[in-house]
Amino acid sequence: MTTTTMPDHIVSAFDADLKELGDKLAEMGGLAEKLVAESVDALLTRDSPLARRVIDWDRSIDRLQQEIEERAILTIAKRAPVAIDLREVVASLRIANDLERIGDLAKNIAKRVIALDGQFQPPKLAHGVAHIANLTLAQLKEVLDAYTQRDEARALEVWKRDGEIDQLYTSLFRELLTYMMEDPRNIGFCAHLLFCAKNVERIGDHATNIAETIYYLVNGTPLTEDRPKGDTSSSTKIEFPQG
Amino acid sequence: MTTTTMPDHIVSAFDADLKELGDKLAEMGGLAEKLVAESVDALLTRDSPLARRVIDWDRSIDRLQQEIEERAILTIAKRAPVAIDLREVVASLRIANDLERIGDLAKNIAKRVIALDGQFQPPKLAHGVAHIANLTLAQLKEVLDAYTQRDEARALEVWKRDGEIDQLYTSLFRELLTYMMEDPRNIGFCAHLLFCAKNVERIGDHATNIAETIYYLVNGTPLTEDRPKGDTSSSTKIEFPQG
Repeated sequence: MTTTTMPDHIVSAFDADLKELGDKLAEMGGLAEKLVAESVDALLTRDSPLARRVIDWDRSIDRLQQEIEERAILTIAKRAPVAIDLREVVASLRIANDLERIGDLAKNIAKRVIALDGQFQPPKLAHGVAHIANLTLAQLKEVLDAYTQRDEARALEVWKRDGEIDQLYTSLFRELLTYMMEDPRNIGFCAHLLFCAKNVERIGDHATNIAETIYYLVNGTPLTEDRPKGDTSSSTKIEFPQG
Repeated sequence: MTTTTMPDHIVSAFDADLKELGDKLAEMGGLAEKLVAESVDALLTRDSPLARRVIDWDRSIDRLQQEIEERAILTIAKRAPVAIDLREVVASLRIANDLERIGDLAKNIAKRVIALDGQFQPPKLAHGVAHIANLTLAQLKEVLDAYTQRDEARALEVWKRDGEIDQLYTSLFRELLTYMMEDPRNIGFCAHLLFCAKNVERIGDHATNIAETIYYLVNGTPLTEDRPKGDTSSSTKIEFPQG
């Protein structure tokens, strides 16, 4: 902890505030990982009761985000931290915001599992979503470790790898459209899978945001390079079936 | 402006901070409305150059959000506001966050317009998206007016009406699936329209978030009723100590 910016009696109170923020963020990160893993598991195994638990757990994430926002703002108001101390508090605010969005996205996958309950679905259609979800979950774990260790280099690796997830998502988008064109009975399920895949891809974006926050926290300046954007699905030209 | 919570010399500086935040937020709100309107217009009229301008304008929204975050945090650190003064600053942080997300969603619609450039699309398919977009844009305008006037009642009306947008979205989702099943040549276009519709529905959610922020700003307590809807809730409800 930097101790050059505030008198000692304020430092100890500030350290206690920061520790509380860190503990809550660690809890939130663990929950976010769990929600992502379990929502995709629920999708693959068609487990509606598990999907319902995911939706419940998301409330805990929301509550933690509220607590972190409140604690961070009061810390800024009471301690008036500067430099690295201020960045620590702002980083916790931003990361909590990203984790809350990740929880939301996992909850949305879980809701689609419940919507699909009882419908015929060839299991292979969901494999692509599982694949991209595994990669995204690995990114999330990695960036949360990078945050715990304030490891800017690891964070940058996560940031650079996001392009792979985006490219995978673009292929998956095309693949799912192909399944729809092959058999209209796939259309409803694949439409939900398109959204699940998009949610997973956006979870990857939030992992990337967290990486940017770590960079800013350690360096005091924002990442100025352009993000390695690879999701071109929103600009994917559509190929229509012949005939 | 409440002047009971701080000495006079701090109040005038605080008022200047708050005015700057308010001016930036008003600019951001105007831009967000414009992006939503123009992105949907670009979708309906197949106007790729307009879609490219929307993508450019989104950078201004991002920049404003960063400026507001920075200014708000420094204001909290320097002035240590409490009660309504603190809520004013926190509200500007939250609303800027929602407006930035709205800009992103409009940008995503614009990207899909560019992807669809030059392809055959029966115009009627996009009419449903236009309808839900008009309602959502009205909600956004209304909630921004409610914020300008700190009018909690108007904000609550917006909050209650969000359920209508969600219901419309659900019918539109079904309608688009039907077009896909009727003719496989519609699948690619309708898949993009599904995402455009979802983006519009989420813009509505962010208008609802802003309504919740206005309620909290005026009352000092969060809205505790359940939201009139099921989907995405990135809403934050927190209580700061009353001062």
